[in-house]
Formats: sequence, structure tokens, C-alpha cells
Amino acid sequence: MLLTLEYDGTAYAGWQRQLNGPSIQQELERALHKLTGEAVGVTGASRTDAGVHALGQRAHFDTASRIPDDKWPFALNTLLPHDIRVVDSQPVGGAFHARFDARGKTYVYRFYNRRQPSALLRHYTAHAPLPLREDAMERAARHLLGLHDFAAFQAAGGTAKTTIRQIDQAVLRREGEEIRLTVHGDAFLYNMVRIIAGTLLSIGVGKLPEDAFLRAFDTGDRLQLGPTAPAQGLCLVRVDYEGLR
Amino acid sequence: MLLTLEYDGTAYAGWQRQLNGPSIQQELERALHKLTGEAVGVTGASRTDAGVHALGQRAHFDTASRIPDDKWPFALNTLLPHDIRVVDSQPVGGAFHARFDARGKTYVYRFYNRRQPSALLRHYTAHAPLPLREDAMERAARHLLGLHDFAAFQAAGGTAKTTIRQIDQAVLRREGEEIRLTVHGDAFLYNMVRIIAGTLLSIGVGKLPEDAFLRAFDTGDRLQLGPTAPAQGLCLVRVDYEGLR
Repeated sequence: MLLTLEYDGTAYAGWQRQLNGPSIQQELERALHKLTGEAVGVTGASRTDAGVHALGQRAHFDTASRIPDDKWPFALNTLLPHDIRVVDSQPVGGAFHARFDARGKTYVYRFYNRRQPSALLRHYTAHAPLPLREDAMERAARHLLGLHDFAAFQAAGGTAKTTIRQIDQAVLRREGEEIRLTVHGDAFLYNMVRIIAGTLLSIGVGKLPEDAFLRAFDTGDRLQLGPTAPAQGLCLVRVDYEGLR
Repeated sequence: MLLTLEYDGTAYAGWQRQLNGPSIQQELERALHKLTGEAVGVTGASRTDAGVHALGQRAHFDTASRIPDDKWPFALNTLLPHDIRVVDSQPVGGAFHARFDARGKTYVYRFYNRRQPSALLRHYTAHAPLPLREDAMERAARHLLGLHDFAAFQAAGGTAKTTIRQIDQAVLRREGEEIRLTVHGDAFLYNMVRIIAGTLLSIGVGKLPEDAFLRAFDTGDRLQLGPTAPAQGLCLVRVDYEGLR
């Protein structure tokens, strides 16, 4: 079974089951155990960090339960905390893997661009108090498009075999005091979207040149880029699979 | 001094200082006391209920402090909890009153219209799981426009001398799975916006006729209207004053 999940990452140590705090995976496995009586292990499409949110995380699991395919959201939501919601379920074959079979992912990174921070969006945006050169940020974002070696765009701890990635959408849009970066690509390295967001912010305030991404592609040098932007601005919006909704 | 305030009402028993829980007013008075050394009493434009949010609440106070007019937001925000932010400050005369001098108010009520509730917006929207007849809701909202006797539109405990109010904006807009009601009027009775929102929802699911507002104007009968919609969907967006920003 493949689930689509929405969650507020504020209270969690991240997607992955771990010792130093509650995880989304653990809550989901606990609810599945209560519901089915089985010791169900779930595999997520993306191991989101502490504080990172999701509107469309995906997770698969195997089960012998006879719960009808479309009843999983309602059944699980009665057992899950309110900051985790299952929004869709669909059957998949036994060979399906939520991470390895993902064909693309969409992330949104949100900045709140006002001198004083936001009270209502404090857990869902990163505060950007200074005026931003949005035209320069937009031009820089376009440098991300295409096939590039993103070796400079990963945090220590990344385990990817190759650092070549394809980005086919990188758009900034202002809505009132919020600036949203939407990125779609085939796959992302560890912390890649947060490094992109932090670099765009540095370009916006004039701390980095508009061609910082190009320099980082050429040199593979992490120091050409800005700081990793804070977790709470990031949201995993969608994971694409072939032939699935 | 007149402050503009943004707050997340989730953790509070409402605007007004009270015994059964923390209030926004109390937090603000505590921060002002720390900052100025004075026992400052603040008066809000609107006594928002427990769980109700604000993007543009207003509050005035008198002080002998010499803090420059534009420094209050920064100074207070270092002392306030993160779910309360002062976003603007401007000087007003000693006769000014945040509530009595208000010329108009804008409220937004947000529904989340999807079978499964929202995880990310669980504190900021009311869940509307059923399909809605949005065209009927929009036509009904237009019945609110103009000068009417809103006697039927108030909860017990209202203390207004007259129940005649002028509404000059009542608009519904869908954004993805969210439906937003924006209402602007000269003043509102106790729970009036939440009763309007609850009635529109009842019209949307076909439980009340499209002319429910007209019937309530004619009869003054609360029973012609829908239930009071939950607090967390409501946000006080703006309070207008003559000659002030």
C-alpha cells in the first residue's frame, strides 16, 4: 500500500525513526500496528529533517490486512496525532519502493520578508528581515535549471553515489510578505534545497554574486554558496511516480 | 501609542486578561512593564476569543517612556513570546481609544475543504469535509451587504446597544483546498463573523436555504442561522482608523 502524508514537522525529530525524539515514521508504524495488529515497517520517499514539513510525503508498506484500499486514510487518521494526516492511499505491487521508484519531487521553501517576524507563520517560514533584490534572485534561480553536478550543494553526511541531478523548475513567487521558492527535480542531495534557499537569500541581500550557482557548479566548492536555510521553511509538496496519482 | 499586533491565538484564552488561562493582553502588559517599568494597561480594538488569530489587531496605551515612536516593535518583540509579534507602532493623542475610534474591521474566516483534515493548517482553518455548493454560498454572502439589523447574528453575552451594522465586503474565494471568507464592516457583534461563517457552511452543504440571512434579518431569529463556526478559522486582519495607517 502507498500512502500520501501531510505533516507538520515542528514537533518531530524528522521522518526517520530515531532515539533522540519522536519521528513521523514511528507514529505511523505505531498507528499501523494498532490498526492491523501487524509489526508493519514503513519506507518513506524522503527522509525529511527535524522541523521540515510535508504536504505530499509518500510511504509504502506491506500488509496482510483486508482493509479496503481507500479506507486507510480515515482508519489511520483516527489513530494518528493531529499534526500527521494520511490524505490518500493506493495499492502498489510488492516490488514497489517509495524512495527508489520516485521519479521526481517538488519542494517549496518559504521566506517571510518583513522587518518583524511572523507570529502565525513562525513554524512554516524562515524570517528574511532585509529588503531583497528579487530580480537578481529570480535570475539566479534560472541557473539551476538543467542537468548539473550539484556536488557543492550537499551537507556532510550525504551518501549519494552520484551528485548529478536534473532540475526542471526553480521559480520564486511573492505573495504579500511571503516569498516562495518552488523547486522540482528528479532527486535531491541531502540539504540541497535548503542550501539553494540559503544561497538565494544571500544573493537577495547582496552577500553573494548573482552567478554563485554557476561558480559552485564549476568548482564543486560548498563555500561558493550561502548557509543552509533553516528547516522550518521547507516543505515536501509532492513525490511523482510513474502510473500512480 | 498605538500598536499593530499579529498573534497566533492557539495557546491563549483570548485577547482579554482573565483567570482561566494566559491572554494576549496580559503578555503584552507584562512585556510593557518589563520594558518601561510602568504598570501599563493596554486596550485592544477587539476582544478576540480563545483560539482566534490576528494579523492586524490594534492596542493603545499611555506611557511616559521616551522610547522613540518607531522602536516599540523591536523592543517589545525581544520580550514577547514568539506567537505574539508587534508589527507597527504609531503615536496617538491622549483622547484616542483603540475600540471606540475604530471605523471598520476586516476579518477572514478560513475553511479547509477536503475529506481529510489539514495537518499544517489544523490551527488556522475549520475542517469542511463535504463538497460545497460554492455558487449558493457566494450568492448568500451578497445578502449580507448593506445596512441591516444583525440582532439574530450574536451569541448570548453580547452587550451592544444597537444591533444595526453596515457590511461593505463579504467575499468567498477558493485557493486550492482552502475557502476564504473576507468580511469588512463598520463593527461586528459578539461571534457575528463565526455565525456568518457557520451559516455559509450550512448553506454550502444544503442544510440551510440560500436566503437564510434574509430570513434572519426579517425575523431576528438566531435559529434561522447555522451553528457558530469554530474559533480557529477566524482571523482579525485589519482595524481601520481615520488618519492613521
